Amino acid sequence: MFLADLLTTVFERRYRTRDASRTDDRPLEALVNDLIGATGEVSGVNLARQILSRYGRLEDEEKRAFFRHLAEGLAVSASAVRSALAHYEKGQSKESYREFMEAVEPPRQELIRRLNQVPDATRLLVRMREDLLRLSRDSDALQALDLDFRHLFASWFNRGFLVLRPISWESPAQLLEKIIAYEAVHAIDSWSDLRRRLEPADRRCFSFLHPAMPDEPLIFVEVALTKGIPGSVQGLLAENRDVIDADAADTAVFYSISNCQAGLAGISFGNSLIKQVAADLALELPGLKTFVTLSPIPGLVRWLENEGIEYDPEDREGMRRRAARYLIGAKRRDGLPLDPVARFHLGNGALVHQVHARADLSEKGLKQSGGAMVNYLYDLGKVTQNHERFAATKAIAASPEIRSLSAAAEEIQAPGA
Amino acid sequence: MFLADLLTTVFERRYRTRDASRTDDRPLEALVNDLIGATGEVSGVNLARQILSRYGRLEDEEKRAFFRHLAEGLAVSASAVRSALAHYEKGQSKESYREFMEAVEPPRQELIRRLNQVPDATRLLVRMREDLLRLSRDSDALQALDLDFRHLFASWFNRGFLVLRPISWESPAQLLEKIIAYEAVHAIDSWSDLRRRLEPADRRCFSFLHPAMPDEPLIFVEVALTKGIPGSVQGLLAENRDVIDADAADTAVFYSISNCQAGLAGISFGNSLIKQVAADLALELPGLKTFVTLSPIPGLVRWLENEGIEYDPEDREGMRRRAARYLIGAKRRDGLPLDPVARFHLGNGALVHQVHARADLSEKGLKQSGGAMVNYLYDLGKVTQNHERFAATKAIAASPEIRSLSAAAEEIQAPGA
Amino acid sequence: MFLADLLTTVFERRYRTRDASRTDDRPLEALVNDLIGATGEVSGVNLARQILSRYGRLEDEEKRAFFRHLAEGLAVSASAVRSALAHYEKGQSKESYREFMEAVEPPRQELIRRLNQVPDATRLLVRMREDLLRLSRDSDALQALDLDFRHLFASWFNRGFLVLRPISWESPAQLLEKIIAYEAVHAIDSWSDLRRRLEPADRRCFSFLHPAMPDEPLIFVEVALTKGIPGSVQGLLAENRDVIDADAADTAVFYSISNCQAGLAGISFGNSLIKQVAADLALELPGLKTFVTLSPIPGLVRWLENEGIEYDPEDREGMRRRAARYLIGAKRRDGLPLDPVARFHLGNGALVHQVHARADLSEKGLKQSGGAMVNYLYDLGKVTQNHERFAATKAIAASPEIRSLSAAAEEIQAPGA
Amino acid sequence: MFLADLLTTVFERRYRTRDASRTDDRPLEALVNDLIGATGEVSGVNLARQILSRYGRLEDEEKRAFFRHLAEGLAVSASAVRSALAHYEKGQSKESYREFMEAVEPPRQELIRRLNQVPDATRLLVRMREDLLRLSRDSDALQALDLDFRHLFASWFNRGFLVLRPISWESPAQLLEKIIAYEAVHAIDSWSDLRRRLEPADRRCFSFLHPAMPDEPLIFVEVALTKGIPGSVQGLLAENRDVIDADAADTAVFYSISNCQAGLAGISFGNSLIKQVAADLALELPGLKTFVTLSPIPGLVRWLENEGIEYDPEDREGMRRRAARYLIGAKRRDGLPLDPVARFHLGNGALVHQVHARADLSEKGLKQSGGAMVNYLYDLGKVTQNHERFAATKAIAASPEIRSLSAAAEEIQAPGA
Repeated sequence: MFLADLLTTVFERRYRTRDASRTDDRPLEALVNDLIGATGEVSGVNLARQILSRYGRLEDEEKRAFFRHLAEGLAVSASAVRSALAHYEKGQSKESYREFMEAVEPPRQELIRRLNQVPDATRLLVRMREDLLRLSRDSDALQALDLDFRHLFASWFNRGFLVLRPISWESPAQLLEKIIAYEAVHAIDSWSDLRRRLEPADRRCFSFLHPAMPDEPLIFVEVALTKGIPGSVQGLLAENRDVIDADAADTAVFYSISNCQAGLAGISFGNSLIKQVAADLALELPGLKTFVTLSPIPGLVRWLENEGIEYDPEDREGMRRRAARYLIGAKRRDGLPLDPVARFHLGNGALVHQVHARADLSEKGLKQSGGAMVNYLYDLGKVTQNHERFAATKAIAASPEIRSLSAAAEEIQAPGA
Repeated sequence: MFLADLLTTVFERRYRTRDASRTDDRPLEALVNDLIGATGEVSGVNLARQILSRYGRLEDEEKRAFFRHLAEGLAVSASAVRSALAHYEKGQSKESYREFMEAVEPPRQELIRRLNQVPDATRLLVRMREDLLRLSRDSDALQALDLDFRHLFASWFNRGFLVLRPISWESPAQLLEKIIAYEAVHAIDSWSDLRRRLEPADRRCFSFLHPAMPDEPLIFVEVALTKGIPGSVQGLLAENRDVIDADAADTAVFYSISNCQAGLAGISFGNSLIKQVAADLALELPGLKTFVTLSPIPGLVRWLENEGIEYDPEDREGMRRRAARYLIGAKRRDGLPLDPVARFHLGNGALVHQVHARADLSEKGLKQSGGAMVNYLYDLGKVTQNHERFAATKAIAASPEIRSLSAAAEEIQAPGA
Repeated sequence: MFLADLLTTVFERRYRTRDASRTDDRPLEALVNDLIGATGEVSGVNLARQILSRYGRLEDEEKRAFFRHLAEGLAVSASAVRSALAHYEKGQSKESYREFMEAVEPPRQELIRRLNQVPDATRLLVRMREDLLRLSRDSDALQALDLDFRHLFASWFNRGFLVLRPISWESPAQLLEKIIAYEAVHAIDSWSDLRRRLEPADRRCFSFLHPAMPDEPLIFVEVALTKGIPGSVQGLLAENRDVIDADAADTAVFYSISNCQAGLAGISFGNSLIKQVAADLALELPGLKTFVTLSPIPGLVRWLENEGIEYDPEDREGMRRRAARYLIGAKRRDGLPLDPVARFHLGNGALVHQVHARADLSEKGLKQSGGAMVNYLYDLGKVTQNHERFAATKAIAASPEIRSLSAAAEEIQAPGA
Repeated sequence: MFLADLLTTVFERRYRTRDASRTDDRPLEALVNDLIGATGEVSGVNLARQILSRYGRLEDEEKRAFFRHLAEGLAVSASAVRSALAHYEKGQSKESYREFMEAVEPPRQELIRRLNQVPDATRLLVRMREDLLRLSRDSDALQALDLDFRHLFASWFNRGFLVLRPISWESPAQLLEKIIAYEAVHAIDSWSDLRRRLEPADRRCFSFLHPAMPDEPLIFVEVALTKGIPGSVQGLLAENRDVIDADAADTAVFYSISNCQAGLAGISFGNSLIKQVAADLALELPGLKTFVTLSPIPGLVRWLENEGIEYDPEDREGMRRRAARYLIGAKRRDGLPLDPVARFHLGNGALVHQVHARADLSEKGLKQSGGAMVNYLYDLGKVTQNHERFAATKAIAASPEIRSLSAAAEEIQAPGA
C-alpha cells in the first residue's frame, strides 16, 4: 500500500505546491462562504486547499473565530426545517424528502466534506477537531459544532474502512516514531526500547490505519506471546528476558492499547481491534490457546481511598482481594463498572480472569492501583455471549477465583465498614 | 497496497466463513431491527454479516420488500423532529442539537453505516443501491430511500478518499477483466484488444479506486500519447499503427472515459480525474504540451433531425460545420449545452477545440453523430478560469476555428430554416 | 517487489533509450573484443548494451557466427593453462592461484558476466542460450561454449536466489499470459480457462521467479485441493465441477508442472518446488494430509509396443496392471526408471502410490499412455529418506497395491512373453 | 518487495526451524564432504543448513580449521588438470571441455554454491568471507581460498542483479539502523540525526541492494539538493539550516558514499551508483543542472608531511593551492592519483572541479586534510569520455581554476623544494 500510494502522494504534493502559489487574500470567512456556494469541483478544490492551508497558520483566537463562524453562520435554519417538514408530512415524495434532508443538515457539514477533497485533508480535519475539542470547553455553540465533526468522522472512520496492519521492526520509521509518541500505557523511551517490543520472535504489534492517512496509527495494541499467563509487566518487558519461539507460545497477552488521535475522541474502533487481532493470531499460531490482557486498574486506589479501605501494596493477598472486590463490585450510578478499563473489556465480551499484586511497580502503577494489575480473558467462543449478557444485564463475567477473592474481601471489609 | 490488504482480507475471509455458520433464522426485518437496536459493536458485526449475506440471496420481489421496510419502517418521525426542533429553537445547546440531529436522521442511515462494518460491505452496499435504483422506478418511497444511500455514498466516496492509479498490463487480471467489462465508449472485445490499449509505450490508463473496494474501478480514462491531435478514433486504435516513444509525444489524448459502478450513479468524481491525470502526465513526460479529448457527440444526429437539418456523413466540411453549430449553439432550457459530453467537459473547464468528420465509423458512431467527433482541449493554465466562467455565465469556450465553422453553418442553414 | 522494481526499471529504460542513440557501427566482434578488454565499468555498460541490442536483430546465420567467435576466439589458451599450472604446482600462493584461475577460465565467461551488467540482460542472455542450444546441434565447439553459459546460469539461478510466489487471478496480466503460453502438460486454451485454474477457492498455482527477470516464470506447478485422491484429470478440470472450500480439502494434487525457459535447460530447480509448495500449503491449510501428483505416464505406450505387450485402454484393470508393471519394472541401462516423469518424482523422494485407467482421455493422453495416469505420493516425513535410498540403490518406492498390480501383470504377461 | 518476500521468508523460516531439529553430530568436515558428494538436491539442502548453522557457532580457531579444510582438502588436483588439458588439446569436444572445466574448478566452489541453496545463505556466506579476510592474513592457502569466494561473489553481485532503491524516512527501521551503523564518512549519531539526513525535502539517499539479502545495504550515497555548490560539510549538515524545495534546487551534492559489507571487499559496484543516481535525479527534478560531490581528501596531510611542505589550515588560499596541487599532481608509481577518493571519482569519469579550505572541521577532517575538501563534478554528457581518457592516459580532468591554483602552488613551493 505505502509505496503505491506514495507515488500518488508525491504527484499530488507537487501539484498542490504549485497551485498554492495563487493565494487568495480575502478573509477566511469569505473563502468558506465561497466554498459552500461553489458550484463546481474544480474551483472548490482550490478553495479547500487555501482554507486548510490558512487555517494551519492561525492562532488559537483566530481558530476560535473560525469555528464560531461555522457554528453560527453555517447552522441549520429552523424556519427552513419547519417549512420542509410541513411539505414532507403532506406527501413523502422524493422531492419533499430531498428538501427536508437539505434543510436539516447544516451547511457546515457540506463544508467539511468539501474541505476533505484535498489530498491529506482528512488528517488536517482530524487535527482541526482536536483544536475544536480544546477550544470548545466553554462554548455551547462550539460543542454543538463538534457534533457535526463527530457525525462525519463516525461515518468516515467506520470499521469497514479501517485496515488492520502488523507493525514491526520492518515498518517505516515514519510510522514507528508515532508509535513511540503515542504509547500511552507503558512509555517507550527510545528506539532501542521500541525495538525490544517489536523485533523479538515473541512480540507483535497491530494497528488500525485509515487509507486516507496511512502514516497515522489510529489505535494500536502491543502483544506478548508467552507460556502461561504472566503476572507482572516488569517480567514482560525485562530487557534480559528469554525470548521464546512464537510456535512455543500458548498465550497471547495484550499488554498495552493506545488511542492515537485526540481528534477522533468518541469514535470507537478499539472494540473490534482485540477480537480481530486474537482471531488473526489464532490462525497464524495454532498453538495459542489463551488470549488475555495484562491491564492496569486505574481507579483502584482512588476507590479504596473514597471507600476508606486501607491497603498495603506489599500485602499480596490483601491487594488481590481488594482489586477483585473493586473490579466486580464497584459500580457507577448507571450500574456499569466504575473502572474505565474494566468497562472497555467487559463491554467487549471479556471476563475478569485473574488479579496480581506488585505487578506494575512503575510510579504510575503504584499510584493508581498500588501496583495491582488484572488479566481480562478473551475466550473467543464466548465473547459474543458475554458481550450480549453484559449489554443486557450489566452482569460482570468473572472467574471463580476472582469471585472467591472478592467474597473474601467483603468479609474482611465488613467489620471496617 | 494489494498484497498487504490481501493478507487482511484472507484472514477476514476465513474468520467470516466460520462465523457465518451460526445463522439466524428469523425474518430479515427482525435482524434489521436488531441491528438498529444493537448496543455493542460485537454482535452488530455478526448481524450485519448475516443481513448482507441473506440479502445477497433474495429475489427481486423480496428485495423490494426489504427496501420498503427500510423506507417505511426506518424513516424519520415527523413528530420527533418537530419536538426536537422546538427544543433546539429554545436554546441551541449541545444537548438540544444532539437531540435534533438524532431526530432528523432516519434510522436507516445508521443501519447502512452499521452494515458497512463488515469486510467487503462497501462493495455489497454499492450493489444494493444498484438494485434499489432498478427497483425504485415506480415508488416515491424507494426513491426517497435512495437519497439516504446517495447521501452516505457522497461522503464515503469523497474525492479525498479516492486513489488514482495507473492501470497497465502489469495490473492484476482480476482488475483488468473489469476494465474490459466496464469500457462504455469504444468496446474492448478481447484480452488482446485490452493489451493493445495498455501495453504499448504510447498508451496509458488511469482509474480512481476506493480503498474499501480495491478491485473495483470506479471510473477510468484511456489515454493515447501522440504527435499532434488525432482526427479519428479508427487511426488511434488501428491494430497496425506505429507505436511511438512516450518521450516523443507532444499530445495526450483522452479518448475514452467510463463510469463503472451503476450503484454510484450521481456521485461525481470524473471532474477531477482528467485534471489529475493531465497533471501527472505533465510531470512524467515534460514533452507533453497539449491535453485533449477525442470525444463522441452523442446528441448530434438527434438534434439535426429534430431541427430538420439535413446532413451527409460523407460531406466532411458540412458535417464539421453542423457539429460546431450544435456544440456551441444547441442549449437546454436551463441554458446549458444540449450535448451531455459537452456539458461534462465544458463544466470541467475545457474548451471546444476542433471537430472532425468521419472520425468514428463504428455503427454507434455513425448513428449518433454521423461519424463526427470533437476534441475538447484542457489548457491546464486556463481550466479553472474557464470552469468558473462557465459556471457563472454558461458561456461556452471555443477555439476561433470552431466559432467560424459554426458561423458558416448558420449562414447555410438560414435559408433552410 | 513488482511495483518497487518497476520504478527502477522505468528509469533505467529511459536512460537506456537515450544512451542507445550513440550507436557504434563497428562489427559486433570488435565490440565484443572491446568489452573483454574494457578497463572500466562505465564504457563497459555502454558496450554491453549495444552488443545485446545488436545481437537481438541478428539472423540465425549471424548468430551462429557470433557464437563461433565466442567459442573459438575467446576460448582458454592451453599453453597459458600449462604455464600457470606449472607455477601453481611450484608454490600454491595467492598469486600463482590467481594466475591459474585466470588461465583456466575462458574470456567468454567474463564476457557473459559483463553483458549481464545491463538492465534486463539476464533475460536476454537466457534467450541467447536458447538460440545457442538450437544452433549448436552439429557443432562441438558451440556445444562446448554452451557449457560456459550453463556453468554461469547454474550459479546465477542457484536455488538461494529464486523466489517462490503464488500465481493467482490477482497476478499481473503480463505474468499470466506467460503461464498460458508455457503450460506444457494440460494446455490452457483461453483466459477463461486460466481463470478456472487460478480463481476458485480450491485451486492454487506457484512459480519460481528470479529477481532479475521478475516477469518470467521459471517453472510453475498447478495444484488442486480435493477431498480424496482424484483418479482422472477430466474430473479435476471439468468446467461444471463443484468448488470446495480450501479448509475442507484433505489432499493437495500437483496436476501440472511446467518448465518455462528453454534457455535454462539442464539447470534444475524443480526438485525443491514441490517440497516447498507442499510445506507452505501444509502451514496454510492444516487440514491437508496428503500431497500427491496426478501425473502422465509419457513412455507407457511406447514401452508396451516395444515389449510387444497388447493393451486395451477400455480394460481398466488391465491398463492399471500394465502401468504399474511399467513404472516399477521398466528400467534404463543405468538402472533408473525408464519413464522420465517417474525418474523426476522418485528422485525427489516420492513413491508410486496409485494408477488409474481412463484418467486422461485427451488425444495426447490416449496416445502416450492409453489414458492411464499415476499418483506419486509426497509423504513429507519420508521424502528425504526415500530420496536417499533411491539415490543410493535406485530402489523404487511403491505402495503395496502398486506392487500387487505389477505382480499380477507379470503373471499375465508371462505366457505372452 | 519486502512484504512479498517476507511471506516466503516467514514460511521458509518455520520450515527451517523444524528441519533443523534433525541435527547431525558428525564433524563439520564430514558434513562438508557429504555435501560435495551429495547427489540430490533434497539432502543437500539439509546438509547446507546444518553446515551454515554449525559454522555460525564456531570460534575463530575452529573457523580457521574449517577454512583450511576447504583450502587444502577441496583444492584443484594438478594431475587431474594436466590429464584433462591433454584430452582437451587432442580434440576440443563437448566432453573434453566438460572434463577440463570440472578439473580446473576446485570442489570448494561447488561447495559454496551448494551452501547458497539455503534461505538467507547469501548473507551468511558474505559474513563467512568477512571472517576469512580477517583470518587469512598470514596464510597463502586461505588467501587463495578467498579468490574462490571473490570469484563467485563477483558473479552473484553482478551489477545486473543489484537493485537501486531510495532510502527514506519511510524505509523499514530494520534497514535504517544499518544505514546508521555503516555510514563511514560523516558519522550518524542518533535516529534524529538520521532523520535530518533523510526526511527534509532537499535530502535523498540511495542504496544498492541484492534481492537475496534485501535488508542489507551494499553501498549507499547521501545526497543534498542545494542552490549552488556548497563549500563546507558543516553548512550542509547544520541542524538549523533552511530546507529548500526539491524543485528549487539546481545542484545535487553527493556528500557521503559508504560501503557496507566487509565481506564484499574488492567487488566493485560503486562506479555505477553515482551515475545511476544522477540520471534518476535528473529525470525526477528537471531543475538540477549540476551533479557534484563534496568529498574528503584523505591523503592530503600525509602527502604534505612526506613532501615536507608546510601548511596552515587557517590560510584558506594556501590550503586550496596545496589541495589542488596534491589532487592533480601527486601520483602513485603506476601513474594513478595518490588520493584514493580521487582515483575513485576520476576513474568514474568525474573531474576535479573546486577545492575548499575549512570545509570539514571535524577532528578527522582536520587530521586527514587540514579541513580541506573537494568537489568532483559529474558532467553527465562528458562522463564516458572523461572515463575513457583517464583509463587510457591517466590524464586527470580538472577545471581551469584548479589548474591555476595548482600552478600557483608550484611557484610557491619551488623555492622550498
